[in-house]
Amino acid sequence: MSLSLISFTYPDKPKQVRVGAWHNGGILDLTSLARADGSPICDNCEMTVIEWLNCTKALEWAAGLVAGAAPEEYTRSRSEVKLLAPIPDPPKVICLATNYESHLNESRNAQTDRPKRPTPEGPRIFMKPSGNTVCADGDPILITSHTTFCDYEGELAVIIGSACRNVGAADAMRFVGGYACCNDISERDLSIVERTETQEWDRFFDWLNGKWFDNSLPIGPGIVPARFIDDPHALTLRTRVNGELRQETSTGEMFFDIPHTIEYLSKIMTLQPGDIIATGTPAGVGRVMDKPLQPGDVVEVDISEIGTLSNPVAGE
Amino acid sequence: MSLSLISFTYPDKPKQVRVGAWHNGGILDLTSLARADGSPICDNCEMTVIEWLNCTKALEWAAGLVAGAAPEEYTRSRSEVKLLAPIPDPPKVICLATNYESHLNESRNAQTDRPKRPTPEGPRIFMKPSGNTVCADGDPILITSHTTFCDYEGELAVIIGSACRNVGAADAMRFVGGYACCNDISERDLSIVERTETQEWDRFFDWLNGKWFDNSLPIGPGIVPARFIDDPHALTLRTRVNGELRQETSTGEMFFDIPHTIEYLSKIMTLQPGDIIATGTPAGVGRVMDKPLQPGDVVEVDISEIGTLSNPVAGE
Repeated sequence: MSLSLISFTYPDKPKQVRVGAWHNGGILDLTSLARADGSPICDNCEMTVIEWLNCTKALEWAAGLVAGAAPEEYTRSRSEVKLLAPIPDPPKVICLATNYESHLNESRNAQTDRPKRPTPEGPRIFMKPSGNTVCADGDPILITSHTTFCDYEGELAVIIGSACRNVGAADAMRFVGGYACCNDISERDLSIVERTETQEWDRFFDWLNGKWFDNSLPIGPGIVPARFIDDPHALTLRTRVNGELRQETSTGEMFFDIPHTIEYLSKIMTLQPGDIIATGTPAGVGRVMDKPLQPGDVVEVDISEIGTLSNPVAGE
Repeated sequence: MSLSLISFTYPDKPKQVRVGAWHNGGILDLTSLARADGSPICDNCEMTVIEWLNCTKALEWAAGLVAGAAPEEYTRSRSEVKLLAPIPDPPKVICLATNYESHLNESRNAQTDRPKRPTPEGPRIFMKPSGNTVCADGDPILITSHTTFCDYEGELAVIIGSACRNVGAADAMRFVGGYACCNDISERDLSIVERTETQEWDRFFDWLNGKWFDNSLPIGPGIVPARFIDDPHALTLRTRVNGELRQETSTGEMFFDIPHTIEYLSKIMTLQPGDIIATGTPAGVGRVMDKPLQPGDVVEVDISEIGTLSNPVAGE
């Protein structure tokens, strides 16, 4: 397993966000290690996780530590810390809809009561509000009382490392800081407004608003820096509910790959360090098999070379 | 004019955000006043603008200062400071589409090539990313090269003062911190993807993505605390381009008033202190009169009892 960077706090200092790395099932406190005598980055020991992603010297040092016998006095068990989302407060959470052909096909087959969604000719982009949706590995998915169908969508998350605007696909990958697992949790039938008729335009707003509930974007448990992933389009993405395999595909199945997605997005607006791009979900969502998430379930998103994100499901 | 709170910095301390108030065409430095001997809030002088909005004692004191002869040594001219958006980094920017009947009607008449938008049966909500869209009075609107029609939408902005979730309309107004002018600048014909056919579903994504460009949400110049506005649904909203009146109506024309909008939103997700709700625009947008914004234009949004927001238009 490659270096995977996390953000965490100690219970007695809940406002001091620290950077760590997974190591032998525990957490290596990189912030404390960086401060220590002889650290190669002691001149810059208070870096955020984004700054870590942009510092080659720091990444190589940390990768060497987790590959070997890292100093035990800087290793914590998971129960000693509070794990945060790896980017605790991302500027934007940008999501792609229907970016896997298999998911487009299963959606078309399931929705017999409305116009067939066309094959996308460009990325279909929406956003989640980061302040209330982003949560960490282990945090509960909070099903609201306004839906009868809460659903998972396992996805590869791209984390922007440095700002960009109007970049071409050929240049785009140098602005990627790293990768994580995420879960674009969705309410399939948000029903707050009682409609007398439902037109496509209002369907869109209901669909969009059902993406925004609290804790609807678990991400993590850590970020693998881009330099340690040879090909982000050759990873295996799997989603399991209570251990049952629901989604399994290669990230190479995307309609719009990461460079072309960044090209499109950076034409619309400035991408900022820490922005998260959730790159879409493949076939196997619960809606198609009529299996909504229920309180007590556990959802896992597992991506080869990246890690496993696990979240319990709870009622509000 | 009521108390209007702003956020600003001094050029030599660009990271220290201070709170001020408009006073006789200048800016009263409330943060410095609060620190001074004898201030009634010297125990809490480092408050953010959101904390000011929630502190009755501080608001009453500041209102008294701006109503009288405030101490000159704490007054700055506008050119001495950098004005920021009143909430420099709001957690969310939530916008209402088609929330004024006059705008719904003019849009229906203008769009003869597509299905008529139905009258909304509930609030139609979308978001802007706050990090790249929010800007201050005086900041330039940056028309991108991906549109031929950049348009204004003058709107009343509601600023959430304290967090809420699942509140009814009858209780909703106590979570409002204040009001401001804002401008939901929109690209009417975002054309990055060349489409061979355009279905309603893709029209929605193009429409949504055209709301997100840099500096597309000017807001300010300040926030008037909610306690100083008797009835936010009885204000006159006007938009001018180069002095020419384009929009003029009462905020009472909204389909979904502020309490019902907050009720709806707080069912979807937690509203957080500093969240901005742009409550929709009335008739008179540039698209209908075929007058796109051009570099060199100046757009003003003027709301009675609230203030005037003015922004120049520039190319990217």
